[in-house]
Amino acid sequence: MKKVRIGVVGLGRLGYRHAENIANITRHAELSAVCSIDDQELAIARKELDVRHCYNDFQTMLDQCELDAVAIVSSSDQHAPQTLHALEKGLHVFCEKPTGISHEECKAVEQAVNNYPHLVYMPGFMRRYDPSYAYAKKKIDEGYIGKPILFRGYSVDPESSIEGALKYAASSAGQFLDMAVHDIDLARWFLGAEPRSVYAIGGCFAHPEYEQYGDGDNVAALMQFDNSSMAFFLAGRTAPHGYNVETEIIGTKATLRIAAVPQKNMVELIDPTGVRQECSQTFQERFQEAFVNEMQEFVDCIREGRKPEITAGDGTMSTFIAELATKSFKQNELIKIEN
Amino acid sequence: MKKVRIGVVGLGRLGYRHAENIANITRHAELSAVCSIDDQELAIARKELDVRHCYNDFQTMLDQCELDAVAIVSSSDQHAPQTLHALEKGLHVFCEKPTGISHEECKAVEQAVNNYPHLVYMPGFMRRYDPSYAYAKKKIDEGYIGKPILFRGYSVDPESSIEGALKYAASSAGQFLDMAVHDIDLARWFLGAEPRSVYAIGGCFAHPEYEQYGDGDNVAALMQFDNSSMAFFLAGRTAPHGYNVETEIIGTKATLRIAAVPQKNMVELIDPTGVRQECSQTFQERFQEAFVNEMQEFVDCIREGRKPEITAGDGTMSTFIAELATKSFKQNELIKIEN
Amino acid sequence: MKKVRIGVVGLGRLGYRHAENIANITRHAELSAVCSIDDQELAIARKELDVRHCYNDFQTMLDQCELDAVAIVSSSDQHAPQTLHALEKGLHVFCEKPTGISHEECKAVEQAVNNYPHLVYMPGFMRRYDPSYAYAKKKIDEGYIGKPILFRGYSVDPESSIEGALKYAASSAGQFLDMAVHDIDLARWFLGAEPRSVYAIGGCFAHPEYEQYGDGDNVAALMQFDNSSMAFFLAGRTAPHGYNVETEIIGTKATLRIAAVPQKNMVELIDPTGVRQECSQTFQERFQEAFVNEMQEFVDCIREGRKPEITAGDGTMSTFIAELATKSFKQNELIKIEN
Amino acid sequence: MKKVRIGVVGLGRLGYRHAENIANITRHAELSAVCSIDDQELAIARKELDVRHCYNDFQTMLDQCELDAVAIVSSSDQHAPQTLHALEKGLHVFCEKPTGISHEECKAVEQAVNNYPHLVYMPGFMRRYDPSYAYAKKKIDEGYIGKPILFRGYSVDPESSIEGALKYAASSAGQFLDMAVHDIDLARWFLGAEPRSVYAIGGCFAHPEYEQYGDGDNVAALMQFDNSSMAFFLAGRTAPHGYNVETEIIGTKATLRIAAVPQKNMVELIDPTGVRQECSQTFQERFQEAFVNEMQEFVDCIREGRKPEITAGDGTMSTFIAELATKSFKQNELIKIEN
Repeated sequence: MKKVRIGVVGLGRLGYRHAENIANITRHAELSAVCSIDDQELAIARKELDVRHCYNDFQTMLDQCELDAVAIVSSSDQHAPQTLHALEKGLHVFCEKPTGISHEECKAVEQAVNNYPHLVYMPGFMRRYDPSYAYAKKKIDEGYIGKPILFRGYSVDPESSIEGALKYAASSAGQFLDMAVHDIDLARWFLGAEPRSVYAIGGCFAHPEYEQYGDGDNVAALMQFDNSSMAFFLAGRTAPHGYNVETEIIGTKATLRIAAVPQKNMVELIDPTGVRQECSQTFQERFQEAFVNEMQEFVDCIREGRKPEITAGDGTMSTFIAELATKSFKQNELIKIEN
Repeated sequence: MKKVRIGVVGLGRLGYRHAENIANITRHAELSAVCSIDDQELAIARKELDVRHCYNDFQTMLDQCELDAVAIVSSSDQHAPQTLHALEKGLHVFCEKPTGISHEECKAVEQAVNNYPHLVYMPGFMRRYDPSYAYAKKKIDEGYIGKPILFRGYSVDPESSIEGALKYAASSAGQFLDMAVHDIDLARWFLGAEPRSVYAIGGCFAHPEYEQYGDGDNVAALMQFDNSSMAFFLAGRTAPHGYNVETEIIGTKATLRIAAVPQKNMVELIDPTGVRQECSQTFQERFQEAFVNEMQEFVDCIREGRKPEITAGDGTMSTFIAELATKSFKQNELIKIEN
Repeated sequence: MKKVRIGVVGLGRLGYRHAENIANITRHAELSAVCSIDDQELAIARKELDVRHCYNDFQTMLDQCELDAVAIVSSSDQHAPQTLHALEKGLHVFCEKPTGISHEECKAVEQAVNNYPHLVYMPGFMRRYDPSYAYAKKKIDEGYIGKPILFRGYSVDPESSIEGALKYAASSAGQFLDMAVHDIDLARWFLGAEPRSVYAIGGCFAHPEYEQYGDGDNVAALMQFDNSSMAFFLAGRTAPHGYNVETEIIGTKATLRIAAVPQKNMVELIDPTGVRQECSQTFQERFQEAFVNEMQEFVDCIREGRKPEITAGDGTMSTFIAELATKSFKQNELIKIEN
Repeated sequence: MKKVRIGVVGLGRLGYRHAENIANITRHAELSAVCSIDDQELAIARKELDVRHCYNDFQTMLDQCELDAVAIVSSSDQHAPQTLHALEKGLHVFCEKPTGISHEECKAVEQAVNNYPHLVYMPGFMRRYDPSYAYAKKKIDEGYIGKPILFRGYSVDPESSIEGALKYAASSAGQFLDMAVHDIDLARWFLGAEPRSVYAIGGCFAHPEYEQYGDGDNVAALMQFDNSSMAFFLAGRTAPHGYNVETEIIGTKATLRIAAVPQKNMVELIDPTGVRQECSQTFQERFQEAFVNEMQEFVDCIREGRKPEITAGDGTMSTFIAELATKSFKQNELIKIEN
């Protein structure tokens, strides 16, 4: 069977990483085209990734290039329109989170995906494809932890990358949509349920700049799910030690923790500061394997005519919950969700 | 200077431990009398601790025995009346938590304590005297963590002790007052602030017996404090691995975790299950040193004519907050606290 | 620049892994041919790796197929003759350890490599390309540990794979050559010196079968190096917990430990056994990234016209030292090495 | 039964610690007298420990004071003569290691102890009474580790205390007798066997001052025991992180590690250096509980008319083995031990 020809739109840090993986690592895949509004990004991709077809415009790429699939890694507001456009063109779609910038847009994508049942649509919640998270899920499904009681998820970017984060703060949808949404997806996945109440709080502890956007540099939420299980989320921008994505699932029979120490590698350093492990500093460093695995799953689904476990509906739901958390935080009110 | 003569009332697991420490370890202290309604407990104390004066009645002990101080470790409903009585008799008082079974009772104790400024009154929040918690507090006070962002406290009793816990469930004031109150005290101590909003949830995940008391076997609360800092609490009865008291304080510059692994000792076991540490199974095992240190502090305060850092007001406030959490959980409502 | 065409000889567990990496992951490389005496292995490679040219005979592969390089992963006794043959044919050579089955054979390979200075020769000591070991080396070179005092290296295969190990025991060169040789290479690399005395001991603790080969199921050696630094080695077959490759380098200013817990992933499991991490079970699981990196380095060296840091001489020296340790163990004598 | 009246000779860091424990913590014991050639030490003990009988001379203490037992914590050369003297006076004897400064002296003590079978003699190898070591021993005795393969013991004093160590270097018996002797005792205890070969090496890596005494600042030894089990020892003076006493026992079924991280307490610190634990800095900090427990065992043995597990013979044997390691190191030769 021939290789799956993929066009990547968006060549920022994450887009380039996806393009690179498709070009070099993903089996049975071919990086056929890239699209960016930034000519310099295109030039680098052409040179480093040896990709022949480079475009400034998504529609042109779709019109001119023979593709089987697209990977949408553009700015969030383009996710939904580009998804709809690609589906119409009969292309399989991998789309980074969020699937749309509002609950309504997400719903529209979900509807379109349903209209093209022969096409593969996969939202990019890469954590599910990280070996440690996948292992945790397997243990939970096997009953190892018993009945789930509490999900705890921290997603805190390193203080060392605050400058970039602040530049992006104005156009960001806030910490819950930007950061906690991954944990919300994991909570739903691990707990096997949907939230029925949400209370969120937060503040600016180191960076008052976030106040003008009605955001905090650290925010937290407590949710109860419809099987009574609970979830606690912390999202922020001030981790002193590195890229802090830490997860815990407490059950009646056992507890699982993933990356409680977000260790950079297997080296332990012993010196006058004590005994320590250094930490991962970026999502690329922490989740390299997850990005590779999720793209492979996308390609394998296309080749094998099956659908990924994660759906457009998951994308909608996580966005919806993150929006409720944002609202709860801004209004300092408890939100109850009707089913 | 002569030894401080102490009478202990209550000889349950914790009471006996205090009596034993006073008899054997506390410097400049003497176990002068013990009081219990259980004759067998008295017989054991007489034999093992070599204590001469044994009483069935608190008042009789105070009338007949020459004491400088009492340690009140009786059932919670006796704490306030016995405290008031001892203060009236001119005795220094160490009293296990809670200082009273309601906010009002706590307030009455606080008032009485203020009326006897020459007497030492010390509520038994032993965690503050644990070397690890004391070290964490020292680091926080030195500015090591920067501005505190989030306090996280777990207090989960081992599943292996559930039988005893269930027997006691009817007379218990619920998980927040019974278990989380220690974390509430720690949160106030570490964050240096008081809560302004409380939302609490919970459920019966393994032991439906708790439902009849309007309680859960695991409960959680999220609070925002008046300096914007946040606190998350988990209290429960189902820890599979042991006596799980784990604490984290996240700050802008550093994070501290205490007993993230509630290790029994310094032995690491490596076998086909992996590389592991076994866990403490009881509060006595975990906090032996803390109990010794707090009683020493009580005695030292008496001898040196000074007051302990922890006050009757701390007891009142922690009870008050735990009551609010209980109310929020029972009514599934957000509670805002006026100042 | 065109891809480096590689033929792989030997399709056992490790050979297949190299072939797979070349086919799927190594950049700028092409799996052009495979060679095995086992037709079934060839059939699998043809199907799974889509390799067109399959051979039963190494010489035939070299005669019939257009190759730039070979990766020699055949049985140890073939390493030297196949290396010499390939070099004569003008091919770059990657060869798994050992570079020869005796000190003399290793020396012959070293001589041949020197005779073809335009060809890349790389012995397969993959640990140097593992991110954790590479990081440790970098820290050492930067002076972080000060002056090295002691290298400690454990290489113990899991008890669970003992059956395979026992089958192979007769033709094995013994634990020092088979297992400890990797640690010997690391010790030389980290300590920057050569040993001047060797004392080795060992025994059969679980598997008396090794006695007939004059070997132990666990052996140990202590060496002093010519800069006074020391090295301790443990090699064996009975690790209860998994694939136990653990390394420590103690210096005057700091100590580094690599994989003291040979953790399988970043999941921590908490249950009645305690708090634990599960362990890697195979070298493939532990060193997957190292195998990928070393093959990439081989290909990059070829393309960039440079030589890898590791040399044929390193292969000779490690074999020589492992032979001395074997001799010391068999004779129960201290061996001093003249320089 | 009345209290055991103990006289302590030697009030250095360790002697004072023992005196303090006897005065304050040891049950059924009384600090009846102290003896030191340093008047200032006596003055401090009189004031802080409230001890009435203070002496400059051991013999005078024995003549003038009513004692049941002595604790000998004087300089090593006094251990044997004071032990013999006390036994003659009919006193029970606790004596810090070494039991004598030579194999011969140890033997003489052993002989004397045998001559007074009604008296308790206990050499101070406190590690056996540390809860973690005691737990490890229990697990080994229960068969948890299977057959022991390798004992590894590190005893490295912190670099921060090097000044004191250097002052004491001239009169020290060298690292093996001074530091490793505790590990030698543990190895014999855990392995249940005696060594049959010893090879030792070492060097001055940071402190050339040790060379003049024929010693190293770090030394190591490899031994094979008469049940084929192996032991590796490292002793030194340059631990950058603290008081590094770390032990591992590898068996066929499981491995135990004690204090692989010599953690100061249960606090984990997370900051830009990574995730770390701080370390104990002194033997008093690490082994406080062990010192308390061993003195309690001494007193309990006296009261209960039984003998401690550890014997004068253990003291002799550990000294003997440490002497052989010292000899092997100085002569760079393998030493085989006839049985």
